[in-house]
Amino acid sequence: MSEPDAALLSLNTATVRAQWTLPEIIGGCARHGIRGISPWRDQVAAAGLKETATRIRDAGLTVTGYCRGGMFPAPDRNGRRAAADDNERAVDEALTVGARCLVLVVGGLPKERDGRIASKDLQGAREMVRDGIGELLEYARPAGMPLAIEPLHPMYAAERACVNTMAHANDLCDELGAGLGIAVDAYHVWWDPRLKHEIERAGARERLLAYHICDWLVPTTDLLNDRGMMGDGVIDLPLLRSWMEANGYRGFHEVEIFSNRWWQRDPDDVLATCKARHRECT
Amino acid sequence: MSEPDAALLSLNTATVRAQWTLPEIIGGCARHGIRGISPWRDQVAAAGLKETATRIRDAGLTVTGYCRGGMFPAPDRNGRRAAADDNERAVDEALTVGARCLVLVVGGLPKERDGRIASKDLQGAREMVRDGIGELLEYARPAGMPLAIEPLHPMYAAERACVNTMAHANDLCDELGAGLGIAVDAYHVWWDPRLKHEIERAGARERLLAYHICDWLVPTTDLLNDRGMMGDGVIDLPLLRSWMEANGYRGFHEVEIFSNRWWQRDPDDVLATCKARHRECT
Repeated sequence: MSEPDAALLSLNTATVRAQWTLPEIIGGCARHGIRGISPWRDQVAAAGLKETATRIRDAGLTVTGYCRGGMFPAPDRNGRRAAADDNERAVDEALTVGARCLVLVVGGLPKERDGRIASKDLQGAREMVRDGIGELLEYARPAGMPLAIEPLHPMYAAERACVNTMAHANDLCDELGAGLGIAVDAYHVWWDPRLKHEIERAGARERLLAYHICDWLVPTTDLLNDRGMMGDGVIDLPLLRSWMEANGYRGFHEVEIFSNRWWQRDPDDVLATCKARHRECT
Repeated sequence: MSEPDAALLSLNTATVRAQWTLPEIIGGCARHGIRGISPWRDQVAAAGLKETATRIRDAGLTVTGYCRGGMFPAPDRNGRRAAADDNERAVDEALTVGARCLVLVVGGLPKERDGRIASKDLQGAREMVRDGIGELLEYARPAGMPLAIEPLHPMYAAERACVNTMAHANDLCDELGAGLGIAVDAYHVWWDPRLKHEIERAGARERLLAYHICDWLVPTTDLLNDRGMMGDGVIDLPLLRSWMEANGYRGFHEVEIFSNRWWQRDPDDVLATCKARHRECT
């Protein structure tokens, strides 16, 4: 298998969010020769939207995704309306920073304002997601901002995303049409026996909008914040990349590591390690 | 939806393994009017196989499953041979205690003797699982012991079981034929958008051999040992039971809770709570 193109490394800013502000992360990418970036909305808000757009453009970075829209389910119409409005703002922001897509973490079971789960109706939540994406597409499609559903690992079905397989994401794309695609995150989908088939299905319809990488640690000690640096876990990342490339994906490889361990490390070391591991282990 | 039949409650002995020996658990079931039990091999070995079989029979308990066979993948032929031999012993033990099925937790990626993952070849591990089950069926089928594949949650793909969906388990049953079925554990499969369809598929072929219940807590603080008591989490257990029953399942409802919390509680309280929650929440 060929080595990955070093020019296709992108940094999801969550990877060093504990150590650096967004301007510092942009500076770090420039300094380390990382040419893609995928920023989070809260960081952009803190740094200023227009200032961030300018700073990213001046650094010559490609915005491989904007994190994130979604969280569609809510227990009542007002809640779903608030999510819809917020998602339109996310589209606007993604356009301003020149993102290649708006990543959608679609949300899990509907929650009360205090965070408690309001309903166990998973099928109902999935219908809210379908309806919410359909409505958002009417705003994003004419604006020219592709929406990328990120299927999340099934362990997040209740709290973060009730789209948990590539097959489900492909089904939604089939149903909802143009302007919608998929962000494939190795951490979330590596276990799926249908993965190769569903990447083929997505590739044939030009739906492969983003590719996120990190690794699954053994053992994993925390459901959310114990993701691994590429090479430290058990995912066959070169194999996954070969499937993406065989099905037409030519985009960036975005490192996204939620990790209490890496958040304690010197951020320049983290970026240097991302570069090395991207080359050696993916 | 109708209430569950209280006579169909079964106790997987892992639920109180930290507090009680197996003879104590059998006594507890009798005392609480719980009529089914599913014991683990290590507990049976500690209590004596024949003594346990006698004790369970004398208590009038149905053995709803025997836990467990499986763990097929290994880095070399010797390791796979050792697993095969051990699995034949598990079949023998299951026969001795009169179990309705031997539950298979099929194993994840092959491991070295020290526990480290030996290979990232997930497809290869899945082939070892298929071959291992196929071989074990040649022993179990004539002996009259049904094998029940338990698809485990995808978060266990690396370490415990690389069969993570009902669809995959159904595919294996299609390929390997008679004597093989599925243990449906709500905790492992509740998130699956294909669940209803795959229960229908399994039911049509009389593959629904066991039904395990507990609950998915929000938040879940440990990947292995933070499972919830029925009613404390987000799984729509009455809906799942309705799907099982609509597709012909008439067997027990086996409570299996791996929980650092419940393992610290008085075991009589745990059993009383299982009974109440079975009636109220499943």
